[in-house]
Amino acid sequence: MSTINVMVNGLPGNLARLVAGHLSKDGRFKLVPYSLTGPEIQETGCSVSNISVQLIQADQRDSQIEQIKQSQGAFLSVDFTHPSAVNSNAEFYCRFGLPFVMGTTGGDCQKLEATVVSSSIAAVIAPNMAKQIVGFQAMMEYAADNFPGLFRGYTLNVKESHQRGKADTSGTAKAMVGYFNKLGVAFSTEDIVKVREPEDQKAQWGIPDEYLSGHGWHTYTLVSEDQTVRFEFTHNVNGREVYARGTVDALLYLFEKVQTGTRGKMFTMIDVLKNI
Amino acid sequence: MSTINVMVNGLPGNLARLVAGHLSKDGRFKLVPYSLTGPEIQETGCSVSNISVQLIQADQRDSQIEQIKQSQGAFLSVDFTHPSAVNSNAEFYCRFGLPFVMGTTGGDCQKLEATVVSSSIAAVIAPNMAKQIVGFQAMMEYAADNFPGLFRGYTLNVKESHQRGKADTSGTAKAMVGYFNKLGVAFSTEDIVKVREPEDQKAQWGIPDEYLSGHGWHTYTLVSEDQTVRFEFTHNVNGREVYARGTVDALLYLFEKVQTGTRGKMFTMIDVLKNI
Repeated sequence: MSTINVMVNGLPGNLARLVAGHLSKDGRFKLVPYSLTGPEIQETGCSVSNISVQLIQADQRDSQIEQIKQSQGAFLSVDFTHPSAVNSNAEFYCRFGLPFVMGTTGGDCQKLEATVVSSSIAAVIAPNMAKQIVGFQAMMEYAADNFPGLFRGYTLNVKESHQRGKADTSGTAKAMVGYFNKLGVAFSTEDIVKVREPEDQKAQWGIPDEYLSGHGWHTYTLVSEDQTVRFEFTHNVNGREVYARGTVDALLYLFEKVQTGTRGKMFTMIDVLKNI
Repeated sequence: MSTINVMVNGLPGNLARLVAGHLSKDGRFKLVPYSLTGPEIQETGCSVSNISVQLIQADQRDSQIEQIKQSQGAFLSVDFTHPSAVNSNAEFYCRFGLPFVMGTTGGDCQKLEATVVSSSIAAVIAPNMAKQIVGFQAMMEYAADNFPGLFRGYTLNVKESHQRGKADTSGTAKAMVGYFNKLGVAFSTEDIVKVREPEDQKAQWGIPDEYLSGHGWHTYTLVSEDQTVRFEFTHNVNGREVYARGTVDALLYLFEKVQTGTRGKMFTMIDVLKNI
């Protein structure tokens, strides 16, 4: 198998930096020393494991990309940019024939799919790159579709803790509530207990100090009407390592699709999980 | 909808008594005042919510059943008998045209299915009547089939607590380990932590006193190789109420199948869950 060239965009952002670090240490990959970056970034370069990466502003990308393609050969792109840039970035990748992996919760999804499907490239686009959480959501969706009303009469409690900076309720928690609703449980997303206070996170949840600034802990508890049955599902993520690993798996998946000639197709993390 | 006549066999056993109690208080059902019982039972009758039920030994059943059918009209049977009696009981029900719900973990399963399929009746047969646990197992099976290797590199811990009298490791826990193995986790059923000591159950697990003599608590914990991700799945059942409720649902399901003319068909709790 040949080395997979990857351009990680969104540097010097945290998650982009983590993914670029993984790729630079993984013999299957070679990091392309260029990265598209946001208008708020002042730096013109950054360093990833001794690789000096040149940062490119949006207004420069069209003029520079052909030259990068010529100097680097074919490559995959990874995109962790601001939700507001999702659609324009996807159009950019499609216009220049660059297959990409995009982790995003924003943008116009239907337009995104239309852009990819009408293009000459393939892409993996997912709101959550953590494979195991995506897998657990798929299990819940399967139950909701196949066993409607399974937990009728049960009482649900949902609590989630994230770093203080996350203002909104977790999208994963909201999606899970949707599945529980189909399973017969009366519960509103407004009743999700949202914890953002570091002192509570330490004292009541036992979240380690070093992860107070970046974590996602979720617990779903179901209790039967007569109190004799209790189900509890927990998924606790510290840091962003699991998202970086999922991104690497998505790149390996996309590379194989590109190698076998797949064009104009949008994949999700569920496809990556199924490895089909 | 007409009243559903049900003969609950295995009285005066605990689970049979619980199911009979439910049926006697539920306007949709009418309890048939006869019950097939085991050779170890000395009594010739027992009382369920003021209904006097006559107990019938196996050597008397063939001679009495036709008379019961004539006096009671069509009825469904519920069977919670010893694993050693599973196959002969199923043959009895089939021979006399009695649709039945059977909760069992013993007997020759293939022979059981052959008996039902070649008969003129329909039956629901399941190793576990607790609908929600069966549903959770089905979710795990779905993941194991569709996302093999999803938890590769994760460490698994399984612990289960049951009443002291249960000598063997929980069959549900063993089945779950099989799914986790398919999901990429190296774990042997021998490594399941089995708790049977009431003092530990009280002190370490917090199991209520009144359920030390009858409970099934299970916890499965997965931790990623780098320790940053933790999943935990728990299902705790106190007493036998959930099994009785599942049996009632199985009876409602079977009744509809019988009403619509289904013959020679064996259903599982998954069919009941799907309500297809």
